[in-house]
Amino acid sequence: MGAVKTKRMPRAVREQQMLDAAVQIFGQRGYIAASMDDIAELAGVSKPLVYLYLNSKDDLFTACIRREAQALFAAVRAGVRRELPADRQLWDGLLAFFTHTARHPDGWSVLHLQARTHGEVFAAEVTVVRAGIVAFVTQLIAEAARDALARSADRAPAGGASVDPPLPERDVAGLAEALVGAAESLADWANATPSVTARQAAATLMNFAWTGLGELMAGRRWSPPSA
Amino acid sequence: MGAVKTKRMPRAVREQQMLDAAVQIFGQRGYIAASMDDIAELAGVSKPLVYLYLNSKDDLFTACIRREAQALFAAVRAGVRRELPADRQLWDGLLAFFTHTARHPDGWSVLHLQARTHGEVFAAEVTVVRAGIVAFVTQLIAEAARDALARSADRAPAGGASVDPPLPERDVAGLAEALVGAAESLADWANATPSVTARQAAATLMNFAWTGLGELMAGRRWSPPSA
Repeated sequence: MGAVKTKRMPRAVREQQMLDAAVQIFGQRGYIAASMDDIAELAGVSKPLVYLYLNSKDDLFTACIRREAQALFAAVRAGVRRELPADRQLWDGLLAFFTHTARHPDGWSVLHLQARTHGEVFAAEVTVVRAGIVAFVTQLIAEAARDALARSADRAPAGGASVDPPLPERDVAGLAEALVGAAESLADWANATPSVTARQAAATLMNFAWTGLGELMAGRRWSPPSA
Repeated sequence: MGAVKTKRMPRAVREQQMLDAAVQIFGQRGYIAASMDDIAELAGVSKPLVYLYLNSKDDLFTACIRREAQALFAAVRAGVRRELPADRQLWDGLLAFFTHTARHPDGWSVLHLQARTHGEVFAAEVTVVRAGIVAFVTQLIAEAARDALARSADRAPAGGASVDPPLPERDVAGLAEALVGAAESLADWANATPSVTARQAAATLMNFAWTGLGELMAGRRWSPPSA
Protein backbone atom coordinates (compact mmCIF):
# COMPACT_ATOMS: atom_id res chain seq x y z
CA MET A 1 0.00 0.00 0.00
CA GLY A 2 1.33 3.42 -0.92
CA ALA A 3 1.98 6.09 1.64
CA VAL A 4 -0.85 8.60 2.14
CA LYS A 5 0.02 11.56 -0.02
CA THR A 6 -0.13 14.73 2.02
CA LYS A 7 -2.09 17.34 0.18
CA ARG A 8 0.25 20.33 -0.09
CA MET A 9 -1.47 23.65 0.33
CA PRO A 10 0.07 27.13 0.28
CA ARG A 11 0.64 28.53 3.74
CA ALA A 12 -1.61 31.53 3.06
CA VAL A 13 -4.54 29.24 2.26
CA ARG A 14 -4.00 27.13 5.38
CA GLU A 15 -3.79 30.27 7.51
CA GLN A 16 -7.10 31.51 6.16
CA GLN A 17 -8.68 28.15 7.03
CA MET A 18 -7.32 28.44 10.56
CA LEU A 19 -8.62 32.00 10.86
CA ASP A 20 -12.04 30.95 9.52
CA ALA A 21 -12.23 28.25 12.19
CA ALA A 22 -10.89 30.55 14.90
CA VAL A 23 -13.40 33.34 14.16
CA GLN A 24 -16.23 30.80 14.34
CA ILE A 25 -15.07 29.31 17.66
CA PHE A 26 -14.12 32.65 19.27
CA GLY A 27 -17.34 34.27 18.05
CA GLN A 28 -19.65 31.49 19.21
CA ARG A 29 -17.99 30.34 22.44
CA GLY A 30 -16.15 33.46 23.53
CA TYR A 31 -12.43 34.06 23.88
CA ILE A 32 -11.97 32.22 27.16
CA ALA A 33 -13.98 29.09 26.37
CA ALA A 34 -12.43 28.75 22.91
CA SER A 35 -9.79 25.99 22.82
CA MET A 36 -6.92 25.62 20.36
CA ASP A 37 -7.86 21.93 20.05
CA ASP A 38 -11.31 22.80 18.78
CA ILE A 39 -9.97 25.43 16.41
CA ALA A 40 -7.39 23.01 14.95
CA GLU A 41 -10.03 20.29 14.58
CA LEU A 42 -12.50 22.59 12.85
CA ALA A 43 -9.74 23.84 10.53
CA GLY A 44 -8.76 20.23 9.77
CA VAL A 45 -5.15 20.71 10.81
CA SER A 46 -2.98 19.64 13.73
CA LYS A 47 -2.69 21.83 16.78
CA PRO A 48 1.11 22.18 16.43
CA LEU A 49 0.55 23.55 12.93
CA VAL A 50 -1.77 26.23 14.34
CA TYR A 51 0.93 27.21 16.84
CA LEU A 52 3.61 27.10 14.12
CA TYR A 53 1.64 29.47 11.90
CA LEU A 54 -0.13 31.73 14.40
CA ASN A 55 2.19 31.40 17.42
CA SER A 56 -0.27 31.58 20.36
CA LYS A 57 -3.96 31.87 21.23
CA ASP A 58 -3.49 35.60 21.78
CA ASP A 59 -1.76 36.11 18.43
CA LEU A 60 -4.42 34.03 16.70
CA PHE A 61 -7.14 36.14 18.33
CA THR A 62 -5.38 39.35 17.28
CA ALA A 63 -5.10 38.04 13.71
CA CYS A 64 -8.86 37.32 13.77
CA ILE A 65 -9.64 40.85 15.00
CA ARG A 66 -7.49 42.42 12.26
CA ARG A 67 -8.90 40.26 9.49
CA GLU A 68 -12.53 40.82 10.50
CA ALA A 69 -12.00 44.56 10.91
CA GLN A 70 -10.42 44.82 7.48
CA ALA A 71 -13.22 42.80 5.87
CA LEU A 72 -15.95 44.94 7.49
CA PHE A 73 -14.28 48.21 6.53
CA ALA A 74 -13.70 46.98 2.96
CA ALA A 75 -17.37 45.96 2.64
CA VAL A 76 -18.58 49.40 3.74
CA ARG A 77 -16.11 51.25 1.49
CA ALA A 78 -17.11 49.08 -1.47
CA GLY A 79 -20.80 49.82 -0.82
CA VAL A 80 -20.45 53.60 -0.95
CA ARG A 81 -20.19 55.36 -4.32
CA ARG A 82 -18.95 58.87 -3.75
CA GLU A 83 -20.54 60.29 -6.90
CA LEU A 84 -24.09 59.62 -5.63
CA PRO A 85 -26.19 62.02 -3.52
CA ALA A 86 -25.50 62.07 0.23
CA ASP A 87 -28.67 60.22 1.27
CA ARG A 88 -27.92 57.45 -1.21
CA GLN A 89 -24.30 57.19 0.02
CA LEU A 90 -25.52 56.90 3.60
CA TRP A 91 -28.11 54.29 2.69
CA ASP A 92 -25.64 52.23 0.65
CA GLY A 93 -23.05 52.42 3.43
CA LEU A 94 -25.56 51.37 6.10
CA LEU A 95 -26.91 48.55 3.95
CA ALA A 96 -23.36 47.30 3.27
CA PHE A 97 -22.56 47.47 6.99
CA PHE A 98 -25.64 45.58 8.21
CA THR A 99 -25.42 43.07 5.36
CA HIS A 100 -21.83 42.29 6.32
CA THR A 101 -22.52 42.02 10.07
CA ALA A 102 -25.59 39.83 9.39
CA ARG A 103 -23.61 37.50 7.10
CA HIS A 104 -20.64 37.32 9.46
CA PRO A 105 -22.19 37.26 12.94
CA ASP A 106 -19.16 35.45 14.39
CA GLY A 107 -16.82 38.05 12.94
CA TRP A 108 -18.99 40.84 14.38
CA SER A 109 -19.03 39.12 17.76
CA VAL A 110 -15.21 38.85 17.69
CA LEU A 111 -14.87 42.52 16.77
CA HIS A 112 -17.52 44.17 18.86
CA LEU A 113 -17.91 41.90 21.87
CA GLN A 114 -15.02 39.48 22.37
CA ALA A 115 -12.19 41.85 21.42
CA ARG A 116 -13.46 44.51 23.79
CA THR A 117 -14.11 42.19 26.71
CA HIS A 118 -10.77 40.43 27.10
CA GLY A 119 -8.17 42.99 28.01
CA GLU A 120 -6.65 46.26 26.96
CA VAL A 121 -4.39 44.84 24.23
CA PHE A 122 -7.28 43.45 22.17
CA ALA A 123 -9.50 46.44 22.95
CA ALA A 124 -6.73 48.72 21.61
CA GLU A 125 -6.83 46.86 18.28
CA VAL A 126 -10.52 47.64 17.96
CA THR A 127 -10.05 51.25 19.04
CA VAL A 128 -7.65 51.83 16.14
CA VAL A 129 -10.04 50.28 13.60
CA ARG A 130 -13.00 52.20 14.99
CA ALA A 131 -11.11 55.48 14.74
CA GLY A 132 -10.56 54.72 11.03
CA ILE A 133 -14.27 54.08 10.49
CA VAL A 134 -15.22 57.28 12.35
CA ALA A 135 -12.73 59.21 10.18
CA PHE A 136 -14.29 57.72 7.04
CA VAL A 137 -17.82 58.63 8.16
CA THR A 138 -16.66 62.11 9.23
CA GLN A 139 -15.30 62.68 5.74
CA LEU A 140 -18.58 61.54 4.13
CA ILE A 141 -20.65 63.88 6.32
CA ALA A 142 -18.26 66.80 5.78
CA GLU A 143 -18.40 66.34 2.00
CA ALA A 144 -22.19 66.10 2.04
CA ALA A 145 -22.33 69.29 4.11
CA ARG A 146 -20.00 71.06 1.65
CA ASP A 147 -22.17 69.95 -1.26
CA ALA A 148 -25.28 71.21 0.53
CA LEU A 149 -23.53 74.51 1.17
CA ALA A 150 -22.48 74.85 -2.48
CA ARG A 151 -26.06 74.19 -3.59
CA SER A 152 -27.49 76.74 -1.16
CA ALA A 153 -24.86 79.32 -2.28
CA ASP A 154 -25.93 78.73 -5.89
CA ARG A 155 -29.47 79.53 -4.90
CA ALA A 156 -28.55 82.62 -2.85
CA PRO A 157 -29.51 85.95 -4.45
CA ALA A 158 -26.56 87.80 -6.00
CA GLY A 159 -25.03 90.22 -3.52
CA GLY A 160 -27.03 88.61 -0.73
CA ALA A 161 -25.69 87.82 2.73
CA SER A 162 -22.99 85.14 2.84
CA VAL A 163 -24.22 81.68 3.71
CA ASP A 164 -22.97 80.23 6.98
CA PRO A 165 -21.53 76.75 6.75
CA PRO A 166 -24.43 74.56 7.85
CA LEU A 167 -22.22 72.24 9.89
CA PRO A 168 -19.20 73.37 11.91
CA GLU A 169 -16.33 70.88 12.06
CA ARG A 170 -17.01 69.93 15.66
CA ASP A 171 -20.62 69.06 14.86
CA VAL A 172 -19.50 66.87 11.97
CA ALA A 173 -17.16 64.96 14.29
CA GLY A 174 -19.94 64.50 16.84
CA LEU A 175 -22.45 63.34 14.24
CA ALA A 176 -20.00 60.75 12.93
CA GLU A 177 -19.52 59.41 16.47
CA ALA A 178 -23.28 59.26 16.97
CA LEU A 179 -23.82 57.45 13.68
CA VAL A 180 -21.09 54.86 14.31
CA GLY A 181 -22.32 54.25 17.87
CA ALA A 182 -25.90 53.84 16.68
CA ALA A 183 -24.82 51.41 13.94
CA GLU A 184 -22.79 49.27 16.37
CA SER A 185 -25.67 49.08 18.80
CA LEU A 186 -28.19 48.21 16.07
CA ALA A 187 -25.93 45.50 14.62
CA ASP A 188 -25.81 43.77 18.02
CA TRP A 189 -29.59 44.03 18.29
CA ALA A 190 -30.26 42.89 14.71
CA ASN A 191 -28.00 39.84 15.10
CA ALA A 192 -29.72 38.94 18.38
CA THR A 193 -33.23 39.39 16.91
CA PRO A 194 -33.87 36.65 14.32
CA SER A 195 -36.78 38.42 12.61
CA VAL A 196 -34.76 41.54 11.76
CA THR A 197 -33.08 41.57 8.34
CA ALA A 198 -30.03 43.63 7.37
CA ARG A 199 -32.26 45.76 5.17
CA GLN A 200 -34.66 46.45 8.03
CA ALA A 201 -31.84 47.42 10.39
CA ALA A 202 -30.40 49.75 7.73
CA ALA A 203 -33.86 51.29 7.11
CA THR A 204 -34.39 51.84 10.86
CA LEU A 205 -31.09 53.68 11.21
CA MET A 206 -31.63 55.59 7.98
CA ASN A 207 -35.03 56.77 9.22
CA PHE A 208 -33.52 57.67 12.57
CA ALA A 209 -30.53 59.47 11.15
CA TRP A 210 -31.23 60.75 7.68
CA THR A 211 -34.09 63.14 8.16
CA GLY A 212 -32.19 64.58 11.11
CA LEU A 213 -28.96 64.81 9.12
CA GLY A 214 -30.89 65.90 6.03
CA GLU A 215 -32.43 68.82 7.90
CA LEU A 216 -29.02 69.72 9.34
CA MET A 217 -27.47 69.72 5.85
CA ALA A 218 -30.13 72.21 4.83
CA GLY A 219 -29.05 74.45 7.70
CA ARG A 220 -32.11 73.73 9.86
CA ARG A 221 -31.50 72.92 13.49
CA TRP A 222 -33.51 71.83 16.44
CA SER A 223 -33.05 74.50 19.09
CA PRO A 224 -32.81 73.53 22.74
CA PRO A 225 -34.99 75.45 25.21
CA SER A 226 -32.94 78.18 26.89
CA ALA A 227 -30.92 77.05 29.91
CA MET B 1 -0.32 60.77 76.36
CA GLY B 2 -3.86 59.76 75.57
CA ALA B 3 -4.60 57.22 72.89
CA VAL B 4 -5.53 58.66 69.51
CA LYS B 5 -9.27 58.67 69.41
CA THR B 6 -10.47 56.88 66.31
CA LYS B 7 -13.13 58.89 64.58
CA ARG B 8 -16.10 56.57 64.42
CA MET B 9 -18.01 56.75 61.19
CA PRO B 10 -20.99 54.69 60.07
CA ARG B 11 -19.99 51.79 57.85
CA ALA B 12 -22.18 53.06 54.99
CA VAL B 13 -20.34 56.39 54.96
CA ARG B 14 -16.92 54.71 54.97
CA GLU B 15 -18.00 52.40 52.16
CA GLN B 16 -19.07 55.35 50.02
CA GLN B 17 -15.66 56.96 50.61
CA MET B 18 -13.97 53.76 49.50
CA LEU B 19 -16.17 53.57 46.42
CA ASP B 20 -15.50 57.23 45.59
CA ALA B 21 -11.78 56.55 45.73
CA ALA B 22 -12.08 53.28 43.82
CA VAL B 23 -14.11 54.83 40.97
CA GLN B 24 -11.50 57.56 40.62
CA ILE B 25 -8.56 55.14 40.56
CA PHE B 26 -10.25 52.52 38.35
CA GLY B 27 -11.54 55.21 36.00
CA GLN B 28 -8.25 57.05 35.61
CA ARG B 29 -5.72 54.21 35.70
CA GLY B 30 -7.75 51.29 34.44
CA TYR B 31 -8.80 48.11 36.22
CA ILE B 32 -5.45 46.33 35.93
CA ALA B 33 -3.17 49.19 36.95
CA ALA B 34 -5.40 50.18 39.89
CA SER B 35 -3.95 49.02 43.22
CA MET B 36 -5.81 48.43 46.47
CA ASP B 37 -3.02 50.36 48.24
CA ASP B 38 -3.74 53.46 46.20
CA ILE B 39 -7.49 53.12 46.68
CA ALA B 40 -7.12 52.74 50.47
CA GLU B 41 -4.74 55.70 50.62
CA LEU B 42 -7.03 57.95 48.59
CA ALA B 43 -9.99 56.90 50.75
CA GLY B 44 -7.98 57.64 53.91
CA VAL B 45 -8.45 54.16 55.33
CA SER B 46 -6.28 51.09 55.84
CA LYS B 47 -6.09 48.44 53.16
CA PRO B 48 -7.37 45.70 55.51
CA LEU B 49 -10.48 47.80 56.11
CA VAL B 50 -11.12 47.96 52.35
CA TYR B 51 -10.85 44.16 52.20
CA LEU B 52 -13.03 43.80 55.29
CA TYR B 53 -15.79 45.95 53.80
CA LEU B 54 -15.56 45.14 50.08
CA ASN B 55 -13.91 41.70 50.19
CA SER B 56 -11.70 41.75 47.06
CA LYS B 57 -10.59 43.92 44.16
CA ASP B 58 -13.15 42.19 41.95
CA ASP B 59 -15.99 42.74 44.42
CA LEU B 60 -14.94 46.35 44.88
CA PHE B 61 -14.94 46.83 41.10
CA THR B 62 -18.38 45.23 40.82
CA ALA B 63 -19.69 47.53 43.57
CA CYS B 64 -18.31 50.52 41.63
CA ILE B 65 -20.03 49.39 38.42
CA ARG B 66 -23.36 48.96 40.21
CA ARG B 67 -23.18 52.28 42.02
CA GLU B 68 -22.20 54.26 38.92
CA ALA B 69 -24.87 52.56 36.80
CA GLN B 70 -27.53 53.33 39.37
CA ALA B 71 -26.43 56.97 39.64
CA LEU B 72 -26.45 57.46 35.85
CA PHE B 73 -29.86 55.85 35.43
CA ALA B 74 -31.28 57.89 38.33
CA ALA B 75 -29.94 61.12 36.82
CA VAL B 76 -31.58 60.41 33.45
CA ARG B 77 -34.90 59.37 35.05
CA ALA B 78 -34.90 62.49 37.21
CA GLY B 79 -34.27 64.66 34.14
CA VAL B 80 -37.27 63.42 32.19
CA ARG B 81 -40.75 64.73 33.01
CA ARG B 82 -43.29 62.46 31.41
CA GLU B 83 -45.98 65.12 31.17
CA LEU B 84 -43.95 67.24 28.71
CA PRO B 85 -44.01 66.88 24.90
CA ALA B 86 -41.86 64.14 23.41
CA ASP B 87 -39.15 66.42 22.00
CA ARG B 88 -38.76 68.10 25.37
CA GLN B 89 -38.56 64.73 27.15
CA LEU B 90 -35.85 63.59 24.76
CA TRP B 91 -33.90 66.83 25.16
CA ASP B 92 -34.15 66.77 28.95
CA GLY B 93 -33.10 63.11 29.04
CA LEU B 94 -30.11 63.70 26.75
CA LEU B 95 -29.04 66.79 28.68
CA ALA B 96 -29.28 64.88 31.98
CA PHE B 97 -27.27 62.01 30.49
CA PHE B 98 -24.43 64.13 29.07
CA THR B 99 -24.37 66.38 32.15
CA HIS B 100 -23.93 63.32 34.36
CA THR B 101 -21.24 61.69 32.19
CA ALA B 102 -19.38 65.03 31.93
CA ARG B 103 -19.47 65.55 35.70
CA HIS B 104 -18.49 61.96 36.46
CA PRO B 105 -15.95 61.08 33.77
CA ASP B 106 -14.33 58.43 36.00
CA GLY B 107 -17.70 56.79 36.64
CA TRP B 108 -18.42 56.81 32.90
CA SER B 109 -15.01 55.30 32.19
CA VAL B 110 -15.65 52.54 34.76
CA LEU B 111 -19.07 51.81 33.25
CA HIS B 112 -18.45 52.10 29.57
CA LEU B 113 -14.78 51.23 29.16
CA GLN B 114 -13.26 49.44 32.16
CA ALA B 115 -16.23 47.20 32.99
CA ARG B 116 -16.49 46.00 29.42
CA THR B 117 -12.78 45.40 28.89
CA HIS B 118 -11.92 43.14 31.81
CA GLY B 119 -13.84 39.94 31.46
CA GLU B 120 -17.26 38.49 31.01
CA VAL B 121 -18.37 38.81 34.64
CA PHE B 122 -18.01 42.60 34.72
CA ALA B 123 -19.29 42.96 31.16
CA ALA B 124 -22.43 41.04 32.19
CA GLU B 125 -23.09 43.63 34.94
CA VAL B 126 -23.09 46.38 32.32
CA THR B 127 -25.24 44.35 29.92
CA VAL B 128 -27.99 44.13 32.54
CA VAL B 129 -27.91 47.87 33.26
CA ARG B 130 -27.83 48.74 29.57
CA ALA B 131 -30.87 46.55 28.93
CA GLY B 132 -32.71 48.54 31.60
CA ILE B 133 -31.80 51.84 29.94
CA VAL B 134 -32.84 50.54 26.50
CA ALA B 135 -36.18 49.41 28.01
CA PHE B 136 -36.70 52.87 29.52
CA VAL B 137 -35.92 54.61 26.20
CA THR B 138 -38.13 52.11 24.32
CA GLN B 139 -41.03 53.00 26.60
CA LEU B 140 -40.48 56.75 26.05
CA ILE B 141 -40.43 56.36 22.27
CA ALA B 142 -43.48 54.05 22.29
CA GLU B 143 -45.46 56.54 24.41
CA ALA B 144 -44.46 59.43 22.17
CA ALA B 145 -45.55 57.39 19.13
CA ARG B 146 -48.91 56.59 20.78
CA ASP B 147 -49.44 60.28 21.57
CA ALA B 148 -48.63 61.21 17.98
CA LEU B 149 -51.07 58.55 16.80
CA ALA B 150 -53.82 59.82 19.11
CA ARG B 151 -53.29 63.36 17.84
CA SER B 152 -53.43 62.28 14.20
CA ALA B 153 -56.59 60.20 14.91
CA ASP B 154 -58.20 63.30 16.44
CA ARG B 155 -57.50 65.15 13.24
CA ALA B 156 -58.75 62.35 10.96
CA PRO B 157 -62.12 63.06 9.29
CA ALA B 158 -65.08 61.21 10.90
CA GLY B 159 -65.68 57.88 9.16
CA GLY B 160 -62.30 58.20 7.41
CA ALA B 161 -59.84 55.37 6.92
CA SER B 162 -58.24 54.07 10.12
CA VAL B 163 -54.81 55.48 10.90
CA ASP B 164 -51.90 53.02 10.86
CA PRO B 165 -49.68 53.10 13.92
CA PRO B 166 -46.76 55.26 12.80
CA LEU B 167 -44.17 53.04 14.52
CA PRO B 168 -44.41 49.26 14.69
CA GLU B 169 -43.03 47.71 17.89
CA ARG B 170 -39.93 46.34 16.19
CA ASP B 171 -39.01 49.78 14.88
CA VAL B 172 -39.40 51.28 18.34
CA ALA B 173 -37.01 48.68 19.76
CA GLY B 174 -34.49 49.38 16.99
CA LEU B 175 -34.72 53.15 17.44
CA ALA B 176 -34.09 52.81 21.18
CA GLU B 177 -30.97 50.72 20.47
CA ALA B 178 -29.76 53.31 17.96
CA LEU B 179 -30.34 56.18 20.38
CA VAL B 180 -28.56 54.49 23.29
CA GLY B 181 -25.62 53.45 21.08
CA ALA B 182 -25.30 56.97 19.71
CA ALA B 183 -25.41 58.48 23.21
CA GLU B 184 -22.71 56.11 24.52
CA SER B 185 -20.46 56.88 21.60
CA LEU B 186 -20.97 60.64 21.93
CA ALA B 187 -20.31 60.58 25.69
CA ASP B 188 -16.91 58.95 25.07
CA TRP B 189 -16.16 61.56 22.42
CA ALA B 190 -17.38 64.51 24.51
CA ASN B 191 -15.33 63.44 27.52
CA ALA B 192 -12.23 63.03 25.32
CA THR B 193 -12.74 66.43 23.62
CA PRO B 194 -12.17 69.22 26.16
CA SER B 195 -13.94 71.93 24.16
CA VAL B 196 -17.25 70.02 24.00
CA THR B 197 -19.76 70.79 26.76
CA ALA B 198 -22.57 68.49 27.92
CA ARG B 199 -25.07 70.89 26.38
CA GLN B 200 -23.30 70.80 23.02
CA ALA B 201 -23.14 67.00 23.01
CA ALA B 202 -26.85 66.83 23.87
CA ALA B 203 -27.67 69.37 21.11
CA THR B 204 -25.64 67.39 18.55
CA LEU B 205 -27.52 64.17 19.34
CA MET B 206 -30.85 65.97 19.51
CA ASN B 207 -30.26 67.46 16.07
CA PHE B 208 -29.16 64.08 14.77
CA ALA B 209 -32.03 62.16 16.29
CA TRP B 210 -35.00 64.40 16.86
CA THR B 211 -35.92 65.57 13.40
CA GLY B 212 -35.57 61.98 12.24
CA LEU B 213 -37.65 60.67 15.13
CA GLY B 214 -40.00 63.65 14.83
CA GLU B 215 -40.71 62.89 11.18
CA LEU B 216 -41.20 59.20 12.05
CA MET B 217 -43.69 60.09 14.79
CA ALA B 218 -45.65 61.99 12.17
CA GLY B 219 -45.78 58.85 10.05
CA ARG B 220 -43.25 60.07 7.46
CA ARG B 221 -40.49 57.69 6.48
CA TRP B 222 -37.42 57.77 4.37
CA SER B 223 -37.88 55.10 1.71
CA PRO B 224 -34.91 53.01 0.59
CA PRO B 225 -34.35 52.65 -3.15
CA SER B 226 -35.80 49.34 -4.36
CA ALA B 227 -33.49 46.35 -3.93
